[in-house]
Amino acid sequence: MTHRIAILGASGYTGAELVRLIATHPAIEIVALSADRKAGQSMAEVFPHLRHLDLPRLCRIEEIDFSSVDLAFCALPHATSQEVIAALPRDLRVVDLSADFRLRDVAEYERWYGKPHAAPDLQAEAVYGLTEFYRDRIRGARLVAGTGCNAATGQYALRPLIAEGVIDLDRIVIDLKTGVSGAGRSLRENLLHAELSEGTHPYSAGGVHRHLAEFDQEFSAIAGRPVRVQFTPHLLPANRGILATVYVDGDPRRVHEVLAEAYATEPFLHVLPFGELPSTRHIRGSNFCHVGVTGDRLGGRALVVAALDNLTKGSSGQALQNANLMLGEDETTGLMLAPVFP
Amino acid sequence: MTHRIAILGASGYTGAELVRLIATHPAIEIVALSADRKAGQSMAEVFPHLRHLDLPRLCRIEEIDFSSVDLAFCALPHATSQEVIAALPRDLRVVDLSADFRLRDVAEYERWYGKPHAAPDLQAEAVYGLTEFYRDRIRGARLVAGTGCNAATGQYALRPLIAEGVIDLDRIVIDLKTGVSGAGRSLRENLLHAELSEGTHPYSAGGVHRHLAEFDQEFSAIAGRPVRVQFTPHLLPANRGILATVYVDGDPRRVHEVLAEAYATEPFLHVLPFGELPSTRHIRGSNFCHVGVTGDRLGGRALVVAALDNLTKGSSGQALQNANLMLGEDETTGLMLAPVFP
Amino acid sequence: MTHRIAILGASGYTGAELVRLIATHPAIEIVALSADRKAGQSMAEVFPHLRHLDLPRLCRIEEIDFSSVDLAFCALPHATSQEVIAALPRDLRVVDLSADFRLRDVAEYERWYGKPHAAPDLQAEAVYGLTEFYRDRIRGARLVAGTGCNAATGQYALRPLIAEGVIDLDRIVIDLKTGVSGAGRSLRENLLHAELSEGTHPYSAGGVHRHLAEFDQEFSAIAGRPVRVQFTPHLLPANRGILATVYVDGDPRRVHEVLAEAYATEPFLHVLPFGELPSTRHIRGSNFCHVGVTGDRLGGRALVVAALDNLTKGSSGQALQNANLMLGEDETTGLMLAPVFP
Amino acid sequence: MTHRIAILGASGYTGAELVRLIATHPAIEIVALSADRKAGQSMAEVFPHLRHLDLPRLCRIEEIDFSSVDLAFCALPHATSQEVIAALPRDLRVVDLSADFRLRDVAEYERWYGKPHAAPDLQAEAVYGLTEFYRDRIRGARLVAGTGCNAATGQYALRPLIAEGVIDLDRIVIDLKTGVSGAGRSLRENLLHAELSEGTHPYSAGGVHRHLAEFDQEFSAIAGRPVRVQFTPHLLPANRGILATVYVDGDPRRVHEVLAEAYATEPFLHVLPFGELPSTRHIRGSNFCHVGVTGDRLGGRALVVAALDNLTKGSSGQALQNANLMLGEDETTGLMLAPVFP
Repeated sequence: MTHRIAILGASGYTGAELVRLIATHPAIEIVALSADRKAGQSMAEVFPHLRHLDLPRLCRIEEIDFSSVDLAFCALPHATSQEVIAALPRDLRVVDLSADFRLRDVAEYERWYGKPHAAPDLQAEAVYGLTEFYRDRIRGARLVAGTGCNAATGQYALRPLIAEGVIDLDRIVIDLKTGVSGAGRSLRENLLHAELSEGTHPYSAGGVHRHLAEFDQEFSAIAGRPVRVQFTPHLLPANRGILATVYVDGDPRRVHEVLAEAYATEPFLHVLPFGELPSTRHIRGSNFCHVGVTGDRLGGRALVVAALDNLTKGSSGQALQNANLMLGEDETTGLMLAPVFP
Repeated sequence: MTHRIAILGASGYTGAELVRLIATHPAIEIVALSADRKAGQSMAEVFPHLRHLDLPRLCRIEEIDFSSVDLAFCALPHATSQEVIAALPRDLRVVDLSADFRLRDVAEYERWYGKPHAAPDLQAEAVYGLTEFYRDRIRGARLVAGTGCNAATGQYALRPLIAEGVIDLDRIVIDLKTGVSGAGRSLRENLLHAELSEGTHPYSAGGVHRHLAEFDQEFSAIAGRPVRVQFTPHLLPANRGILATVYVDGDPRRVHEVLAEAYATEPFLHVLPFGELPSTRHIRGSNFCHVGVTGDRLGGRALVVAALDNLTKGSSGQALQNANLMLGEDETTGLMLAPVFP
Repeated sequence: MTHRIAILGASGYTGAELVRLIATHPAIEIVALSADRKAGQSMAEVFPHLRHLDLPRLCRIEEIDFSSVDLAFCALPHATSQEVIAALPRDLRVVDLSADFRLRDVAEYERWYGKPHAAPDLQAEAVYGLTEFYRDRIRGARLVAGTGCNAATGQYALRPLIAEGVIDLDRIVIDLKTGVSGAGRSLRENLLHAELSEGTHPYSAGGVHRHLAEFDQEFSAIAGRPVRVQFTPHLLPANRGILATVYVDGDPRRVHEVLAEAYATEPFLHVLPFGELPSTRHIRGSNFCHVGVTGDRLGGRALVVAALDNLTKGSSGQALQNANLMLGEDETTGLMLAPVFP
Repeated sequence: MTHRIAILGASGYTGAELVRLIATHPAIEIVALSADRKAGQSMAEVFPHLRHLDLPRLCRIEEIDFSSVDLAFCALPHATSQEVIAALPRDLRVVDLSADFRLRDVAEYERWYGKPHAAPDLQAEAVYGLTEFYRDRIRGARLVAGTGCNAATGQYALRPLIAEGVIDLDRIVIDLKTGVSGAGRSLRENLLHAELSEGTHPYSAGGVHRHLAEFDQEFSAIAGRPVRVQFTPHLLPANRGILATVYVDGDPRRVHEVLAEAYATEPFLHVLPFGELPSTRHIRGSNFCHVGVTGDRLGGRALVVAALDNLTKGSSGQALQNANLMLGEDETTGLMLAPVFP
């Protein structure tokens, strides 16, 4: 059986990544691609790397006949998403890749995003899309909220450790390095090649990055008490890849053991042998997340390093993984592509 | 039916790329991986991006039981290949990725490679592996010689034009830009990141690059007279991708027409609309080759630009495409992966 | 004696490069920096790499008291320049870095730039700023027109060869590779890091790039007959550097000899030993241009390769070199900085 | 007066960087350049970016007449340095760029470097070369030990804070990102372009990186008690630049204040306004170090970020700064070059 899907906002990087992944998916057919400002163009004009595919032309959302669509991926900008999704048929399954439905608490949303949510009922209904931890609820969900790509990386490093109580919850530092495609295809001076290549710098440091809202929500829920991490993202001169270097207080062997056990049967989460740490190059273009643990000369300190591809496991791969669950397919279908190295 | 294959020389980039591609191939099983100097190691130690795969441990060639192998990919260095292949069982199908069997003429081989060929009988038997032009012979071949990656790119731009007689055979200039992975994983000062990033330079210019031997052999055979092109390769600060900018004397519209017709039904060769030129970014990690044509303000001059990924369509993807033919599989099996952009 | 200069359009890359170079110039003081949209900001806010310098705050052009300015560098966008310069005091010396005054012929300007020139009298007066070939006229000029960066590179490879009549004027091909900073700090999707890194592509191919107007003007003037070259620029994944690979018909040893003689006493133009070809990495950040020549297996063909830094020798370094001449300083003052490698 | 200097080990990146910096130094003349394995070659053959300079040919150390040398820079590999320096004339001033004389304690040296020191008397004599903190002793020193490049970066972020007692000495985390040129021009598979570009990974994590020995020595000396930091270096896909992201417990405003006061008159150390954080791009190719401080939503935590160029301020620029002091020159001579951006 072939599932018919639509991608709303197909002219951005996450939209293109969805098309790339679905291209070899045996049970999904793309029936509509929307991109308001580029409506009428072919996907090959907007993304020449997809020119070998037979794809519908880009259209406006209102031109889509959703009655023949089984599931819609919504890859629209934050804030736009909630309005568009609120206007979709109520029985249409939706995987949203924006930040709009990640937070369960209306007040938290307003605090971090600076304005009231336009669809609080949907916000309440949405299931948080970190597949490995919300699998059962995602299977039956109508609306799944894709996680932040940084937020996913940090959670893969930390969730089992918080759940098992093996680290000090008040001394967690996440130093994160991310490729530039996470910022999307938007026209900003600070995203130009000449500005970004050949160097690195921190951004949104000091507790203001919005993915902190996800960390707060999820870690506090697991711990049953407020957990507040320190988080410093840095921009890397690379297109893809996130590396989270996480400093925790805890026994490193135990930390490794807990992660290895938690992810033992996970198809996409690989815990490296103790003492080995991952590289973003080795997950590039794939849905895999590599997690490594090592100790320190200072006893009682552990380093947990997680690496994933922000466009794949951090957004579009995760979205397809969730869609597979919602559509009754095997979770890994279309997602076992090996990383592209070098 | 599953075909059992071995990869000899699995610790180089083309070996790793073969594993990446075969990883999602439905009808091929990897039963042996050799790497003399790294024998005993797991593939994950040598290429951590392949750690999710269940692969045989690296071994020495002499440890492989070839009686249970249907086809061997030989990704060994030039010169080593001919000796290893000569020692393999005579009924074993082999796809060689080295330069050892590309030239049909013993004297030409010796002239370009500086020493006599060690297996001239095999050299005579080998079929040149440019799939689209040797398809029928490859299907029945026992030994297929993978082409040079630069040589493949230039030929995709030029073969139909020479065959149709629409360009001046004495005024062909190929200015080529190639990513660094084409030079392999060898320890050379001029392949260090600090030496190569952030700039470009020509190398092996002036008629000495060995891929010229392939251009000479193939273009002369098509034309029925000697054809000698000018060829200047440049090293790009990028890991993958070859762009050949080819200057020819001929009517640009006719040039475009001939290429478009020649490749109309080819699954991997895409001729862009007249006036559009390709980018290496848009074929990265895939088996596709994009070819574009434009004219010049100077009448009677045409520009043909071809782009492909040196590790995929330029070597390992081509090798798998040929293996598919030799094994009776559909030529495109396992090779329809979309390019990875950005 | 200290010369007082102003930089109009200081918020772009060529403006910043002028400041970088002048920072260690012993006889030039920067008294005004204009940037209309960023007026009021400090240079350190716009270019943090200049924060160690004591510079005037960015202002609007009309705020500058030109009576105390000895020379103005005009680093404004094309078309804007001609209007601004026309409004400056007539006795103010000006080095313009835009394309506005490069063409001596009014009709040619209109043909290539698509609209009539707003200051044809100034256009007639302007001296073309390719220092080594217009040195005497630049010394006494009031208005000097900086050359295109690509145009400069191609001319360094070709001018002496055309002047000496040692190459076929009807078979010149310039295949050029340029870093991305040449496109400036403008907000264009195709200048984003995620779009440009890791690959290459041709642009403005087929005889439409505006720097062809300079090639036509200059080469024809030297030859005393129309000369029309073929020219294909490519964008490189590097910030700085232009490499022009020039294919000519001529005797390679003679070609080398002519270039070596022509540039024997030039402080910034270095002709490499015959057979050696340059790399953009080795002129990065400097005012040097390296030129190499080699032959081909095809007799009577020569390859000339020139490399320079588009922001330095290709624009701001050239501008300072010209200003030195106009101000009576030694031409090399402040410009002998060694390239930055790696 | 012109000082005559020799550079021992001129064929590595730090040697080349010394030549680049000295090229525009008004009072230093290079009289000898050694490189054992490349003796007899010209510097232009080994580093074509220096071809415009009139330099002595590379020679073997024993060929140098040290009686006419005022000061030698020793840019040899670790362990080699101590033997070479021990054999130099005892009255020759030496700036060593290796790790050999950084540690004052013989036992510590042996512990971190795995073998006894070959010249313990020189080790005792050597002055630690972090200019801003050892200025007076460097002025009169005969042997100055250049610091580790990572060690310098971390110390610029932390020394004044430890001295003033404004941070918790038991909770210091240094997460560091470094460009690849810090690893030198050595032939190692993990330094190839294809291995390093497009990603990041930690290395020598968990308390084993040798620059920790310098942190331990210096921070403990300042504090008057053992100080042990956590330190995780990461390799960046960029040639130059180190960014140290330092997590401390302390009042962020006070942290900023202490650093701003400490560096108020330093020519090369720039403390940014509170809340601004540096980028490695903005110090590239220069001797400047930018330091930024911000707070966190968690009270009592501060982030200190320091950026410098590993080849300049982190090694060769520092070496020249120290040599200036030893030779009685102004400390900044030849070092005020502005960073190269973009």
